[in-house]
Amino acid sequence: MGEKWTTKVTKVEPNKLTLRGYQLDELIGKLPFSSTAFLAITGRLPESEEGKLFDAILTSSVDHGVTPPSCQVARTLASTGVPPVQAVAGGISTISDYHGGAITRAMEVFYGVPEDAGKIVESAQDYVARARSEKRVLFGFGHRYHNDDPRTRKLLSLARELGYHGGYCAYALALADALGEALGRRLPLNVDGAIAALLCELGFSPDVGNLIFALARVPGLIAHVMEEKRHFKPMRRIVVEDHLYEGELGRGL
Amino acid sequence: MGEKWTTKVTKVEPNKLTLRGYQLDELIGKLPFSSTAFLAITGRLPESEEGKLFDAILTSSVDHGVTPPSCQVARTLASTGVPPVQAVAGGISTISDYHGGAITRAMEVFYGVPEDAGKIVESAQDYVARARSEKRVLFGFGHRYHNDDPRTRKLLSLARELGYHGGYCAYALALADALGEALGRRLPLNVDGAIAALLCELGFSPDVGNLIFALARVPGLIAHVMEEKRHFKPMRRIVVEDHLYEGELGRGL
Amino acid sequence: MGEKWTTKVTKVEPNKLTLRGYQLDELIGKLPFSSTAFLAITGRLPESEEGKLFDAILTSSVDHGVTPPSCQVARTLASTGVPPVQAVAGGISTISDYHGGAITRAMEVFYGVPEDAGKIVESAQDYVARARSEKRVLFGFGHRYHNDDPRTRKLLSLARELGYHGGYCAYALALADALGEALGRRLPLNVDGAIAALLCELGFSPDVGNLIFALARVPGLIAHVMEEKRHFKPMRRIVVEDHLYEGELGRGL
Amino acid sequence: MGEKWTTKVTKVEPNKLTLRGYQLDELIGKLPFSSTAFLAITGRLPESEEGKLFDAILTSSVDHGVTPPSCQVARTLASTGVPPVQAVAGGISTISDYHGGAITRAMEVFYGVPEDAGKIVESAQDYVARARSEKRVLFGFGHRYHNDDPRTRKLLSLARELGYHGGYCAYALALADALGEALGRRLPLNVDGAIAALLCELGFSPDVGNLIFALARVPGLIAHVMEEKRHFKPMRRIVVEDHLYEGELGRGL
Repeated sequence: MGEKWTTKVTKVEPNKLTLRGYQLDELIGKLPFSSTAFLAITGRLPESEEGKLFDAILTSSVDHGVTPPSCQVARTLASTGVPPVQAVAGGISTISDYHGGAITRAMEVFYGVPEDAGKIVESAQDYVARARSEKRVLFGFGHRYHNDDPRTRKLLSLARELGYHGGYCAYALALADALGEALGRRLPLNVDGAIAALLCELGFSPDVGNLIFALARVPGLIAHVMEEKRHFKPMRRIVVEDHLYEGELGRGL
Repeated sequence: MGEKWTTKVTKVEPNKLTLRGYQLDELIGKLPFSSTAFLAITGRLPESEEGKLFDAILTSSVDHGVTPPSCQVARTLASTGVPPVQAVAGGISTISDYHGGAITRAMEVFYGVPEDAGKIVESAQDYVARARSEKRVLFGFGHRYHNDDPRTRKLLSLARELGYHGGYCAYALALADALGEALGRRLPLNVDGAIAALLCELGFSPDVGNLIFALARVPGLIAHVMEEKRHFKPMRRIVVEDHLYEGELGRGL
Repeated sequence: MGEKWTTKVTKVEPNKLTLRGYQLDELIGKLPFSSTAFLAITGRLPESEEGKLFDAILTSSVDHGVTPPSCQVARTLASTGVPPVQAVAGGISTISDYHGGAITRAMEVFYGVPEDAGKIVESAQDYVARARSEKRVLFGFGHRYHNDDPRTRKLLSLARELGYHGGYCAYALALADALGEALGRRLPLNVDGAIAALLCELGFSPDVGNLIFALARVPGLIAHVMEEKRHFKPMRRIVVEDHLYEGELGRGL
Repeated sequence: MGEKWTTKVTKVEPNKLTLRGYQLDELIGKLPFSSTAFLAITGRLPESEEGKLFDAILTSSVDHGVTPPSCQVARTLASTGVPPVQAVAGGISTISDYHGGAITRAMEVFYGVPEDAGKIVESAQDYVARARSEKRVLFGFGHRYHNDDPRTRKLLSLARELGYHGGYCAYALALADALGEALGRRLPLNVDGAIAALLCELGFSPDVGNLIFALARVPGLIAHVMEEKRHFKPMRRIVVEDHLYEGELGRGL
């Protein structure tokens, strides 16, 4: 036997599993999966409204079609004959500084919100000026496809409704305003930025920002990998510019 | 432009995302993440009780401590300095025929349930006899640590409660009985087997069995990777036999 | 301490490394890397001409430009900010049934060469007829870009020169002829098929066929990953159809 | 068609492949694989002695038994049923800051050698003092198993013999001396450090240091993955402390 080392995640005993202090079988059917995920990652159960907000964050990132690099890599792997799980894993492995990483980077900035709410606007303007003079990119603003991203709007309105639209959200929006002013054109908070602000409100550490995105994107990658596997010839050249959406449209809840 | 090809997963338009026919922003805050995952993977929303059952399946697989190969690989990667997302992806990539794959294999068998409910016991006995004479392993029965797995019990009782304890569950249990009789010792349905039976009840295709497990295990892997990263020296020799659980205990909902 | 298990690859002692029975430091500078690779993989040193042939096989597969899925995945990973090693690993992970796997599949067929050299042509015709009636693909013949692949020609002529153009090569060429006759158009042995035939001549087991290809392709993937990293903006959309070669041309040895 | 982009690695034309300006088929059988790898990575052919040295570097890193994290991850993946190529890729993906990364870090330091050879000793002492006062680790010195690593000795003596024991080697050894003095115990240049010094002598850029190591380690990983696959039960618990070497011993060239 070597030196002992300790874990605080899960205790495994015969016929008993304890996750972060809770019996796992007591969570099953009681708590939504997203809240169990919150527990596993942070070590505490979300308060009820926190759980709803965290669930919404995951839902908002479940898929973004065939163009993101995660989807391209996952479909390419599926197409060469790699087993589906390994294709999904390959897709996840693309999540990095420039894909999903904006969440982590934006959180680092948003955690710098001034304590005094009255100074948020000024502080945001200072930050933007400094970033611009140092030629640093501000993550979480603007999007290639969307200029009024419905996910952003929904996440922020939900945060307001649930009482989690606090200082981090205010700072994120103030930064967007300051950036827009500095650039002379609106560069709105994007979905990465909105998620970053909400993860700050929930107390997540910045370094798990892109891991939350990775978790959220798994179902989308599963869908793409299985579609590729089931409906396409192996080793086809996947040109994303040539895709058409031919699925369902206009379904209502 | 090359030849067009089609996808049915997500339509991306400026300021509008359609997932399997539903506007994504309408799902946010309305549906649990697990139901959106169900939608992404199967193309349809779960009926309300199906959603609960699917959520329970995911929750049951969220983590199993430091011994599974997925956790060992993820922690080893984290320990050598690989970024956390890539460490999690590496952990997922271990999910294969012998780790999580039992779900897929068991589903293939359970889908062979006879239509006539009166023939389930006999058919199970035949199946076990045939498998034994062909020296084929039966997946989904028995466990290294647990002989009365609380997750299995909870999943099956929840299925009963929600009205989803149908022919596949009956067949799975009949196979366990037949196997026990043939071996002269009880080899109960394990958590992989229970999940397999429930995924059959929900109409999932066998080839996504281990992908569902992969999705469910991501939060656990995130927890282990971050624990490794934050609390241990890089490149330590991780001997799972030497671990102790020193986390919370006895927390109640 | 648990149960002992054994390895036959490398013995590690203080200040001494033994690879497959040879002191590693005695190999350094004496044997080419490719021969050490041969030793590591097969457990024996190549005879001198075998070493040359194996080296030629590796050289022939070092790169094939930006279109193969391995290169696309590796460059995409590099472009999203994944560290170079992980980008290369992702590229390798695409090597599978339909990318590199033809080597393994072709070896399985070529090892079925009849012992009696006089029956090679007839046996090849039978094999092709059977494969066609069972609608099975024959791997190792035909190529998207090349109809007279210079690598194939060079590998076969080198095998002839070194005395390794034996029954497996003869069978591979007879299969190409039989296939051409059956199809009414020439479908020549491609580079995968040539490599497969030579690996059979060298006694490699079919299951390492695509692993040899993976080893050979690593330098190419390194070149692409570093080019992407150094000369392109992150997260660019990499459309292989739009690439131009602007490197050196016409250099002679 | 989108915007054109350029590559300088490989030009693919029908029946013609040009690697870094050379016809690939002209390299086959003429140049050792390691020299083709050198060409692919650096864009130039090695001078003859450079080729020998680079080949020696690769040979020295081909394997280090079952304990390195790359081997543990690759064997674990093989054991769960992941296809061999993906298991090897998983092994490679462990190569990072703390596994192989020492080569890259050491190269960054060694490239700081003073131009004036007479100042090497003093500069090394300064560097060590500064690193110690900033509590920075010096990479490339000391080893868990070996205190007089036969690979290091061989690589350095070969460099001397071939005329490549220049300023970078001198600086590396001066740093080892300075470190030993500062610590009051010898902490010799290890194999990572020796490789780093030689890669500097050959003009490699530091960021490819651990990629060269990745290439070199592939044959070892193939050997371990295939051994695991062929000779062990799936999903066994792989405890490296319990392994025994039972392969060949005492073979001579």
